[in-house]
Amino acid sequence: MPRPIVTLTTDFGTTGSYVAQMKGVLLGVNPELTIVDITHKVPPQNIRAGAMILAEAAIRFPPQSIHVAVVDPGVGTKRNLIYASMADRHFLAPDNGLLSLLAREFPPVRIIKLANAEYWRSPVSATFHGRDILAPVAAHLSLGVAPDLFGTPLDAVQMLDWPRAAFAHGNCSGEVMAIDAFGNVITNISVADLPQAAALQLERAEAQIAGHVIVGISRTYGEKEPGQLLALFGSSGYLEVAVNQGHAASVLSAQPGDPIAVRWPDANP
Amino acid sequence: MPRPIVTLTTDFGTTGSYVAQMKGVLLGVNPELTIVDITHKVPPQNIRAGAMILAEAAIRFPPQSIHVAVVDPGVGTKRNLIYASMADRHFLAPDNGLLSLLAREFPPVRIIKLANAEYWRSPVSATFHGRDILAPVAAHLSLGVAPDLFGTPLDAVQMLDWPRAAFAHGNCSGEVMAIDAFGNVITNISVADLPQAAALQLERAEAQIAGHVIVGISRTYGEKEPGQLLALFGSSGYLEVAVNQGHAASVLSAQPGDPIAVRWPDANP
Amino acid sequence: MPRPIVTLTTDFGTTGSYVAQMKGVLLGVNPELTIVDITHKVPPQNIRAGAMILAEAAIRFPPQSIHVAVVDPGVGTKRNLIYASMADRHFLAPDNGLLSLLAREFPPVRIIKLANAEYWRSPVSATFHGRDILAPVAAHLSLGVAPDLFGTPLDAVQMLDWPRAAFAHGNCSGEVMAIDAFGNVITNISVADLPQAAALQLERAEAQIAGHVIVGISRTYGEKEPGQLLALFGSSGYLEVAVNQGHAASVLSAQPGDPIAVRWPDANP
Repeated sequence: MPRPIVTLTTDFGTTGSYVAQMKGVLLGVNPELTIVDITHKVPPQNIRAGAMILAEAAIRFPPQSIHVAVVDPGVGTKRNLIYASMADRHFLAPDNGLLSLLAREFPPVRIIKLANAEYWRSPVSATFHGRDILAPVAAHLSLGVAPDLFGTPLDAVQMLDWPRAAFAHGNCSGEVMAIDAFGNVITNISVADLPQAAALQLERAEAQIAGHVIVGISRTYGEKEPGQLLALFGSSGYLEVAVNQGHAASVLSAQPGDPIAVRWPDANP
Repeated sequence: MPRPIVTLTTDFGTTGSYVAQMKGVLLGVNPELTIVDITHKVPPQNIRAGAMILAEAAIRFPPQSIHVAVVDPGVGTKRNLIYASMADRHFLAPDNGLLSLLAREFPPVRIIKLANAEYWRSPVSATFHGRDILAPVAAHLSLGVAPDLFGTPLDAVQMLDWPRAAFAHGNCSGEVMAIDAFGNVITNISVADLPQAAALQLERAEAQIAGHVIVGISRTYGEKEPGQLLALFGSSGYLEVAVNQGHAASVLSAQPGDPIAVRWPDANP
Repeated sequence: MPRPIVTLTTDFGTTGSYVAQMKGVLLGVNPELTIVDITHKVPPQNIRAGAMILAEAAIRFPPQSIHVAVVDPGVGTKRNLIYASMADRHFLAPDNGLLSLLAREFPPVRIIKLANAEYWRSPVSATFHGRDILAPVAAHLSLGVAPDLFGTPLDAVQMLDWPRAAFAHGNCSGEVMAIDAFGNVITNISVADLPQAAALQLERAEAQIAGHVIVGISRTYGEKEPGQLLALFGSSGYLEVAVNQGHAASVLSAQPGDPIAVRWPDANP
């Protein structure tokens, strides 16, 4: 059997000991784990940002991977902690919307509300359920414990409202979802949602954002001169606005929530 | 036998190659290691901060884990490098106080001054003993080399003066020890040190810090409204001051060393 | 057989999911890998900085380690992706100079242009060849696939011009190459290149940088008083300028490319 994989996605930062405390608990239950950090720099308590990073990364790991996510402003209150099986992978997280972007794409086939303290650390602190509940449950799961033993079934995970790009009359309107480490501006316009006629005429498209018009959708960053704005469908399939060898988010003062539109003015529909 | 665990706690940062150089040396001696980063963002040369992070994290790892810590402003001078066995775990560090907070709680049962160059890289640089001495010794330890072979016994580790909270007449005075990644203000007032009567009447306590009075010790961050100051005993058992969904350290301009007091004005002693 | 090691050196940062996506792909092909981060904080698209960090770190890992490096401003354009065998270790990277500092020291014994899509993810995105080509090729390499199967031989890797320190009349002139996490100013003056007479009289040397003159080359940071400038040959063998318990780069306003000179005014040649 290959070594089981547990990934961690949190807003704990990397300056303190919180992440390491979780890893210590994981390895205490199953020392054969391969633990992988997705990121610990989700903006503090920003559930939507955590949900997006988790959705991008989780499906790149092999089936049966165990993904633990902790962005948990409601720790210690009545929100549930849950196990969910989605996309042939396992997820453990607070039920606050953190799994909802994945759940929209890959409806959960099983959801369990964590309730069986037999698999938890004891005593459980009121403020660090990532260490005291999610980590030991993940490690027991990696040892083959059946998810049903962790608690009681739920019908649905908590969903957030995720804005979808809208298509009408050959045009498309969406919004900025995230800024990546290169300053690329990632939107919610997916190449998979484009009408076929539009997808075949990317060179005729015009992207409009923050008063700029970008003519043509590029294939790579290097197609435009250094310093020039460009638009392309990125490695996760979403339209992004970039500056070749530059920082588009600074050039555009772009932030999550800003509108973007794409038109095909001369396209043959 | 489970895979041996080596953790690393340093002030090397994550932008350069120093941490990776240590990992390369560790894996060169024992490629079966599980290496875990505690943090590499101890403030540069801040031994006290490193000691606190190490103390929080180390005991969360399973017994027999090997913890390597490098915050070493005196590298190359006469300070010793040591092995210490504490709390059923192994520690390797410069003897400059970095192990002293743990040693206060878990008196070392064996201390060895590293002196046997047979287990070191050769040649040893004058400025990077973490790579050239501590890493190879840790890896040899993970392979089963007895600690006695690494050098000669010492009687004690170098101790720093760690301020303890003081209790008198039903009141308690302590100080700020650290700020965590969420801006929570961590103090040296431990729930374990509270008189029993006080511990049973937390809702009557008043915490005083930076001119603010917080009435009642909460159990979770979510018990107060967003934006409100609160006090609670955190996941390591120490009193912390927080702002629900906010950044208490900024609100209070709090820094390590600042005083905090807790009173029980109406309590029945 | 020991577990194979794959290291990662990128400019992806640690706030998003790019690094984790690569790790997911690596573990999907070979779940038994030990993956080690060298750094993901190469300054964005700074090939020279990436080449220096990789050169420092790679040779500290055991022979047969697989080093994947991605600083790739030309992703999707005509630059090649390559496999190179150097110093008894394996390297996978864009052929843009990222391997050239290592190649100067350890001439490649085999170079392969990656061309066999059988070992790639499918489809390959236009903008993330680290995930879609380099990661799966590295994982297949770790499983024992012969490098020749990945593509077609090349004669040379792309070289950058790396400034060498110059020695003349008993003096030496070099330049600043990097600033480390402690603010130490690392130069291109290697202890290995010093004339023997100079190397034997380090206490007589005078280092000149940014209008300061430092008399004598120290062995450790602690040889001077806290706050004082000093020069020493660091753990990689290069001359560096430091401030004991301080930040030399700030004191000197030093940046990569700044000149430094070392003279032996009273030495016996």
